[in-house]
Amino acid sequence: MPNTVISTMLARRSVRKFTSQKPSDEVIQEIVRAGQQAPFAGQLCSVILSRKRKQPMGAPVMFTICVDMHRMELVMAKRGWKTVANNLSMLLFGIQDAAYMAENMVIAAESLGLGSCYLGNAPFVAKNLQKLYKLPPRVFPIVQLIMGYPAEEFLPRPRYPYAFSCFEETYPDLTDEMVTAAMKVMDEGYLAQDYYKRQRTKIPLEHGRKETFTYDDYSWTEHISRKWGQWMNDPKEILSQLEKCGFKIGN
Amino acid sequence: MPNTVISTMLARRSVRKFTSQKPSDEVIQEIVRAGQQAPFAGQLCSVILSRKRKQPMGAPVMFTICVDMHRMELVMAKRGWKTVANNLSMLLFGIQDAAYMAENMVIAAESLGLGSCYLGNAPFVAKNLQKLYKLPPRVFPIVQLIMGYPAEEFLPRPRYPYAFSCFEETYPDLTDEMVTAAMKVMDEGYLAQDYYKRQRTKIPLEHGRKETFTYDDYSWTEHISRKWGQWMNDPKEILSQLEKCGFKIGN
Repeated sequence: MPNTVISTMLARRSVRKFTSQKPSDEVIQEIVRAGQQAPFAGQLCSVILSRKRKQPMGAPVMFTICVDMHRMELVMAKRGWKTVANNLSMLLFGIQDAAYMAENMVIAAESLGLGSCYLGNAPFVAKNLQKLYKLPPRVFPIVQLIMGYPAEEFLPRPRYPYAFSCFEETYPDLTDEMVTAAMKVMDEGYLAQDYYKRQRTKIPLEHGRKETFTYDDYSWTEHISRKWGQWMNDPKEILSQLEKCGFKIGN
Repeated sequence: MPNTVISTMLARRSVRKFTSQKPSDEVIQEIVRAGQQAPFAGQLCSVILSRKRKQPMGAPVMFTICVDMHRMELVMAKRGWKTVANNLSMLLFGIQDAAYMAENMVIAAESLGLGSCYLGNAPFVAKNLQKLYKLPPRVFPIVQLIMGYPAEEFLPRPRYPYAFSCFEETYPDLTDEMVTAAMKVMDEGYLAQDYYKRQRTKIPLEHGRKETFTYDDYSWTEHISRKWGQWMNDPKEILSQLEKCGFKIGN
């Protein structure tokens, strides 16, 4: 029997429908405080809490979690220091700090009966978020997190088998059998929950490729393959978003 | 009174001294399973578990958490897809996936009475780790996590004030008073715990700068400023580590 902490993690699902109940100030503060206590390289992250604006999926609360070198550099200036570390290295640390904080917030929220869902699009619309939230230079929004009380109930989603995720001592040769078995777990798991059928989220095929899947066989491995196989082919887009937020790569 | 999940997060400290007790297979599996159930962009991470080798700080267990596009691309190939997404964008997603998994593991471990500590150096020695753990191309070690039963007892470390970490609706002007107050919380908090004095971890000043701090006033803001103010000034280093692991930036 897993303990309360682990069973909370195992029961967590990404929630996309919310009741109209607003989380109280106390609940929000408790969640953010839990986030702040994550282990960090340097507290290189900060959070914009938005609950006045209309949020995606009717969520009462939206957190925009940012890599924050602006605040760090205000502190450093008071100590007589300027950053010499390159932007890419700072981003590697800052993204981790932001994600550690965000994940604590997700689990803390779950423990208080709230649901949440990461929105991963933030880096690709960073310039818009910069304007919306008046982010100063050297602040880069890495992920958004909508949150509220769940208005839907369903089981946790499947994951790859343990032996396909954790390797002892060295990285093994992933055999065709292992890959096929892992795909089966993911695809049958999502199909059993009618996940894509309910959400109507089949990703359209581009370049005239002809659709051969129906909602009876379209599942996780095909869905995720279409993202990385069709989208974000031009690195200039993300490099430009980073540069506009003060993180030119190569500097 | 925070609930068990949140009080576990608030009580967590990075542990650097361990007893000789080895975590059981069941405990390790429970921790990794909790990590696997984190919310992901695409399960773009995998974990190398090492417990045969001698680990830093005498830890019985070391996890190397990797961004893993190799496994993803094996799955995609079975579906007839190749990645067109650029490497930097995939890294942004993959680092988050790895960090969400890692943070669940940290909190799950804490809940089972284990302690852990992130080692952030992995990206900068990625080529060595690639060799050690036989990582295939398209796998990039982003962080390591040592784990075991704590052989030290101390209070959680301080964090910035809430109002310096979470901003409502827009990013505020961080006044001199706010910066000074936040620095005071951090520096006095670490000094009160004799953190740097005990660890003897003062970062040496480079370029002939003369040391003016003793362990009576050397604290967090000076320590962290010396890292970003002196280290990692050449982006070629990290760009080369990434490229050698199959993540050339700009492609």
